[in-house]
Parts: sequence; C-alpha cells; structure tokens
Amino acid sequence: MKKVEEYIKSIPDFPKEGIIFRDVTSVLESPEGYELAISTMNNELKGLDYDFIAGIESRGFIFGATLAYMNKKGFIPVRKKGKLPRETVEMEYDLEYGQAVIEIHKDAIRPGDKVVIVDDLLATGGTAEAAAKLVELLGGKVVKMAFLIELPALGGRKLLEKYDVASIVTFDGE
Amino acid sequence: MKKVEEYIKSIPDFPKEGIIFRDVTSVLESPEGYELAISTMNNELKGLDYDFIAGIESRGFIFGATLAYMNKKGFIPVRKKGKLPRETVEMEYDLEYGQAVIEIHKDAIRPGDKVVIVDDLLATGGTAEAAAKLVELLGGKVVKMAFLIELPALGGRKLLEKYDVASIVTFDGE
Repeated sequence: MKKVEEYIKSIPDFPKEGIIFRDVTSVLESPEGYELAISTMNNELKGLDYDFIAGIESRGFIFGATLAYMNKKGFIPVRKKGKLPRETVEMEYDLEYGQAVIEIHKDAIRPGDKVVIVDDLLATGGTAEAAAKLVELLGGKVVKMAFLIELPALGGRKLLEKYDVASIVTFDGE
Repeated sequence: MKKVEEYIKSIPDFPKEGIIFRDVTSVLESPEGYELAISTMNNELKGLDYDFIAGIESRGFIFGATLAYMNKKGFIPVRKKGKLPRETVEMEYDLEYGQAVIEIHKDAIRPGDKVVIVDDLLATGGTAEAAAKLVELLGGKVVKMAFLIELPALGGRKLLEKYDVASIVTFDGE
C-alpha cells in the first residue's frame, strides 16, 4: 500500500523561487490518498476528549471539516479577516513580510470548550498559534493540533511547544 | 428534530447594506446541524455514477471534501487564481461589479471523468457555471451540482439549466 507521503507532490519554486511547495491537492484527488490521509490524522484524535474542530482557511477546511463530521463534532472555521458574518474576535500574526489577521465567531466557543486545531501544513506555526490564541481568548482550551505535513526546519513545533502537536508526514531540511 | 434551515442564521446587511447573508457556519458549529446538512446533501448523490467531487473555494471545500470522503471519491479544489501550485486551466466569470477568475489543476480531470460540483450557496450561479466550464474544458462531464442553500430570485437555476441542480434549503424573495 502506498504511504501518505507518496501522494504528496513536490513543486519546486512555488509560490516563489527557492521554495518547494508540498501539494496536498494530489492527496485529495486520489480517493485512496484522501482516505489514508484522513484516517491517519484521525488516529491522532482517538480517545481524545474534545468538542470542536477548528479548521484554518482554506485547506484546513478540507481536513478539519471531514474529521469533524466523522467524529460528530462541530466545525469552526478560522477565517481571514472580513469573511465571517457575525461578531468575531481577531488576531494578528506575522508573515515573512508583514502581518495577517484571522478571525473566529465570538459565539462559536464558550468557556471550557475543548478544541482541536487542524490545518494541512505546519511551517513556522504562526497561523496555528494565532488560531490557538483566538480559542483561548474566548475561554476555550486547545487540546490538540493536527497537521498533515510538518516542515521541521521552519521551527513551528518550538513556537507551539505548549500545545500537543501531531503531524503525519515530515519533510526534513527545509 | 430541527430542520437544516433552522440551523442557518440570517445576518442582515452583510457583507453590505440590503443583503441578507445566509450563514452556514452556524450549521457547521452544531454537530447535529452539520450531520443533517451533509446527510441531506448526500441523499442527492445516492445512486449517482461519478468519479470526483469538485468543491468551490472556500465554503464549498467544507461540504465537498466531506461528501467526497464519505463516498470514497477524489476531491478537486476549485480555487481562486494563483493558489494552485501545478499547471491549471482558468475561467473568468462576472461578479456584480467586475470579474473574477477560478482555476483547477489541468491534470485533475481526464476526458470522460464524471464530476459533481459542490458549493454552499447557489445565488446567480456564475461561479458554479465557471467551475462546470473548467470541468468540460478538460473533457469531464458535470453529472450533478449540489448546494446547501439556493436563493431562487437570483436566477442561478436558469443560468445552470443544462445541469442537474439540487439544493437543500431555499430562501425565497431574494
């Protein structure tokens, strides 16, 4: 049987020169690849007590919503600023150049809610950290972070060291 | 048991004055609401012969990816221009003011592939029509379009009349 990493295509120089882009769409396009990716991520959630999965826009929606459905949990979209229609809380975080802002609905999480954060890729960890801060701002607790891919050289696990971080596939040396 | 429409919140004047925004995030945040929405959409796919679900960025990712997983189909993301890393085909379509462009990977669909297009909302139908044209450009066949919400007054069903269109919840008079 093929491994998850064999379904991931590596695209040199995207989105810019010198970056190797790890493409999860090639996982999704294969029914076997997608099932394997989801079931492997889902193993990380086995036995965990939680209320919601928060998925980060937009590839985190794909994995997060599917995992939420399978586990009969609510799904909370973490979105770029301006996309959510009700009252939100927002968090700024650093990108390589400049800043970005993400939001969640203020009424999506109540104090004490246990939340799993899901995204396709752990790189620097900045977005996931901002998502976690939003959960915490509303009194929720981040009980796990699950990623399909991790790029250890970018230091995300260090930034997120206070959280329980799981990733399925690791690409070293980046 | 609550109906799907009871989980949908209506937000007046979002994203601008005079528009009532139908908010699907309130469906997702409820495990019961999400399960009901997905199982009702999935009923529309029962007995249908198809290879892929194409979900339109970004709320279409949520419903489309979950339905693809449940039915052991591949998932094809239809994305805004510039987000997909491999070679794409693109299609321009009209918005209320100006144009937008969506893309799919050129190698995602082979001639003869049968594709279901999924999104959260059918309004004017412009985005869905552009997605269908992309599938057809690659030789695929659109065998169904499935939406959670339809706003009939915006005429999407007329624009898409050559397709088999299904929606779960209808809000009249808009």
